[in-house]
Amino acid sequence: MMSTEPITLVALLHGPDQPGLVARVSGWIFERNGNILHADQHRDTEAGVFFQRVEWIPANDPSESPDSAAEEFQSFAASLNMNPKVANLSRRLRVAIFVSKFDHCFHDLVLRSKSGEFSCEIVAIISNHPDLAETARGYGLNYYLIPVTAATKAESEARQLALLQELKVDLVVLARYMQVLSADFLRKFGRPVINIHHSFLPAFAGGKPYHQAHHRGVKLIGATAHYATSDLDEGPIIQQDVARVTHRHEVEDLVRKGRDLEKTVLAQAVRWHLEHRVLVYGNKTVVFD
Amino acid sequence: MMSTEPITLVALLHGPDQPGLVARVSGWIFERNGNILHADQHRDTEAGVFFQRVEWIPANDPSESPDSAAEEFQSFAASLNMNPKVANLSRRLRVAIFVSKFDHCFHDLVLRSKSGEFSCEIVAIISNHPDLAETARGYGLNYYLIPVTAATKAESEARQLALLQELKVDLVVLARYMQVLSADFLRKFGRPVINIHHSFLPAFAGGKPYHQAHHRGVKLIGATAHYATSDLDEGPIIQQDVARVTHRHEVEDLVRKGRDLEKTVLAQAVRWHLEHRVLVYGNKTVVFD
Amino acid sequence: MMSTEPITLVALLHGPDQPGLVARVSGWIFERNGNILHADQHRDTEAGVFFQRVEWIPANDPSESPDSAAEEFQSFAASLNMNPKVANLSRRLRVAIFVSKFDHCFHDLVLRSKSGEFSCEIVAIISNHPDLAETARGYGLNYYLIPVTAATKAESEARQLALLQELKVDLVVLARYMQVLSADFLRKFGRPVINIHHSFLPAFAGGKPYHQAHHRGVKLIGATAHYATSDLDEGPIIQQDVARVTHRHEVEDLVRKGRDLEKTVLAQAVRWHLEHRVLVYGNKTVVFD
Amino acid sequence: MMSTEPITLVALLHGPDQPGLVARVSGWIFERNGNILHADQHRDTEAGVFFQRVEWIPANDPSESPDSAAEEFQSFAASLNMNPKVANLSRRLRVAIFVSKFDHCFHDLVLRSKSGEFSCEIVAIISNHPDLAETARGYGLNYYLIPVTAATKAESEARQLALLQELKVDLVVLARYMQVLSADFLRKFGRPVINIHHSFLPAFAGGKPYHQAHHRGVKLIGATAHYATSDLDEGPIIQQDVARVTHRHEVEDLVRKGRDLEKTVLAQAVRWHLEHRVLVYGNKTVVFD
Repeated sequence: MMSTEPITLVALLHGPDQPGLVARVSGWIFERNGNILHADQHRDTEAGVFFQRVEWIPANDPSESPDSAAEEFQSFAASLNMNPKVANLSRRLRVAIFVSKFDHCFHDLVLRSKSGEFSCEIVAIISNHPDLAETARGYGLNYYLIPVTAATKAESEARQLALLQELKVDLVVLARYMQVLSADFLRKFGRPVINIHHSFLPAFAGGKPYHQAHHRGVKLIGATAHYATSDLDEGPIIQQDVARVTHRHEVEDLVRKGRDLEKTVLAQAVRWHLEHRVLVYGNKTVVFD
Repeated sequence: MMSTEPITLVALLHGPDQPGLVARVSGWIFERNGNILHADQHRDTEAGVFFQRVEWIPANDPSESPDSAAEEFQSFAASLNMNPKVANLSRRLRVAIFVSKFDHCFHDLVLRSKSGEFSCEIVAIISNHPDLAETARGYGLNYYLIPVTAATKAESEARQLALLQELKVDLVVLARYMQVLSADFLRKFGRPVINIHHSFLPAFAGGKPYHQAHHRGVKLIGATAHYATSDLDEGPIIQQDVARVTHRHEVEDLVRKGRDLEKTVLAQAVRWHLEHRVLVYGNKTVVFD
Repeated sequence: MMSTEPITLVALLHGPDQPGLVARVSGWIFERNGNILHADQHRDTEAGVFFQRVEWIPANDPSESPDSAAEEFQSFAASLNMNPKVANLSRRLRVAIFVSKFDHCFHDLVLRSKSGEFSCEIVAIISNHPDLAETARGYGLNYYLIPVTAATKAESEARQLALLQELKVDLVVLARYMQVLSADFLRKFGRPVINIHHSFLPAFAGGKPYHQAHHRGVKLIGATAHYATSDLDEGPIIQQDVARVTHRHEVEDLVRKGRDLEKTVLAQAVRWHLEHRVLVYGNKTVVFD
Repeated sequence: MMSTEPITLVALLHGPDQPGLVARVSGWIFERNGNILHADQHRDTEAGVFFQRVEWIPANDPSESPDSAAEEFQSFAASLNMNPKVANLSRRLRVAIFVSKFDHCFHDLVLRSKSGEFSCEIVAIISNHPDLAETARGYGLNYYLIPVTAATKAESEARQLALLQELKVDLVVLARYMQVLSADFLRKFGRPVINIHHSFLPAFAGGKPYHQAHHRGVKLIGATAHYATSDLDEGPIIQQDVARVTHRHEVEDLVRKGRDLEKTVLAQAVRWHLEHRVLVYGNKTVVFD
């Protein structure tokens, strides 16, 4: 396939640290007449791990497709014992947003996408409730109602998975989707799922966390965006933020401020992911921002 | 006793809410020719509790001492079913600072006191280690070395208590004092003790919290100042703050940023306390800032 | 008129400080069997000015309308030399939003209003461009296209004024309306107009402020919400906030971060105004939050 | 000269962007058996300028001194049309702190230096007032009193310059030094001077800025650390921060909060400079943090 527009590739690498990694990676690209736009690296000196994000325009070789350029780099990185992921920036990720009834994160994500802040295609809104169907369609988005009950959970997840597969979804965003996805679902989907949840100092277990926080008299409330793992709310953290509260704020004020935090923290995490800036390593992330 | 300088009194009240409390309290002061400088109130509508901080200059009656004016108000407040604390702002609180080896909060508190930010008298630096003795004396402060071991803990606490009593200490500040005060100590002392500790989202139990936070890849670190209670690190929260960290920050950077947080959060909590702005209610605080 | 639902009144007062003001105001309400829900006051000791916000439920007297209760209080406050504004909280303010082409503040305000965060009625979207017409109608809002050119400005403002009058608008919000309202317009409208604009440290005069800020290498960008006055961007400040930027952020990143700031700062200012928390005094505000 | 301890070098480079810069710089170090610890680069795509910070351990060649390794790199970088600065991290910078009467930044910098946060040697405290002489000596620091009057300014600056030269000072920190250094002084000194000053939204010209800010009713106050240039307070910005204020804060509260901002912002700027993380370009900085 010939490309007339220049292609931009981005690679996220990590592996055991060794001398000369920066030189080798940049040298490899340079020798093939590629042009590095951004290169950022990090060393976890304690763990002896090297991390890199490199963004480059490969030589405009009409005989080579972007896919083969990416594959070639992948082989090269593997030869350095590095764990690589290579993406073509001109290919927009296909995103499914899961919602229940709360709409603030949903509106926020969709409007940012429409305004051009996100480089992605929202291919599905999936919900266990009909509440946001009309709004989604007003935005020109496909809405899939898949009710979930304790009895039908496995079946519902199977339907969700089939849909994600059919739509070739690259990323699921849980925009205040009030259901827990099973470990089985996550394993079968096999692609990233970003979740947002409130977080407090100290943490509160159990239900009604804003009530607990108010009862405890916290002076800060927070939100955390993370990749979903089988260990609920314990996946790799992508972004966090807090807002200040006082005794004057009632529970509903905490909830309202929490909504604003959830919107901005989730949007930031999604944007970083879409720009291939987040490298997951163990249970943590390196965010090349 | 005659006062030539005008006296300023401050009262912190709380009790069951009822109509007319603001009118009654302000009316009582006004009728006695007092001049209200600040009055701030809060209603916890859920719990049905009324909170007030009122600061006023009582009539300059040469026949009445500030103490008797305070007592009179106290009786009046009690007659409204309110739980009152009245303080004479011209009387500076007597503070003891407990330290171990870390000196950042110690320097910060002492320098703020010297610069006039705190209205208090630092009457003792009490430590289980000799490390800061010379520095304390360089500041012109009395340093009391009271070593603490598991075996001598009860005895050491008895010595601390005797010293606090002898020095008529109104407030103890634990400036990174790396010992837990027993419930017995807190009960016998019977006056407020302010503590500072790190806090994270999520929280980390056990030792080396900064290592745990780094390992977990948190994006925020925090500090919480609270009144010490027998339930360690679970007392009423006075102030909290956070700082942003990234994968570029190593454990030592987290510790350094933590020190800055601990200084400012503890200093803020102490200043609010010294200005009689913190009302403790249940396990939470109302801070009239 | 009889009211079956309890009415809540809120008064914003200011005037020369004098002893007994708190007692008198609260006493007045108490004597009439009113129930004060919130009372907050402030003294500008330098200027000798007293400020108060008081929110109360007047006695449920079937013979008295809320309007007459408000008027009675107004007379009383005037008798104390206080400058009073009294509002009935159950009456929702009528708001007109002015927009041009940028839609981020517009969506944000409308969605907050729909979610119940704002107690107001959006009675008109007024624009000099047709771009947002369809979106506004999708929200079920009335859209008025009033083009503005240098030649027709006076005439356009006359049309805007007539419309505001006809719709009994209480508050105009300039949601990135890229036109300057004339001093004449502001005087004739005679009601509050809230504006949002970027703000930087240092400030940048002239066009393309984000380009200037990027060129200057600022580390923070900001936004300020203020009441519009004839002195452009110099009216009383209601709310401000900033976001951190680095050399890695390009102009478009600054613009994007600026949009997020503009949304939250404007929304906060509008909410405080709708809750009658903002008292304008000289060229500054007292915000009873 | 032989080195037994490994030497760490750090280079800050900038120059016209061209393909292959990352590869060439890292390749050059790798070929000489150097070990890159950190490498960070940035492209100003608009201006077409490439920036890099690279930190590496050169091969432990007993026949080569760190100085010659640095010089060799310098020549290499120049051959790429890059403007290089190379430093030996094991050489601690020699710092002179200028103070007047305010002591908060002074204490803060000295205590951070003593606690090991700063890798530098404070070789002189220079002041136009005797106020801090005793405190400085208590810290074991040399205090130089050089009074400055309008009449003697040129002469005083000559004395300051002679002292800085004699003490081989690498960096001057103006820790609330209330005098303006002349353009002539800055040119003759020829090394970096870091200054801290308040900053507000909007900016306030003239004296008593905190009074002006209070009068204007700002909701944020700020501080900016920058390199001093002949254009007062207009040099390249290194760091900025803000704190929130309300109508409840009086001028003295603004001043107090301003002190805290000045301390942390100045300390952060100094630390980045000492770690060779700040690259000045035109009138802005690239901070590799």
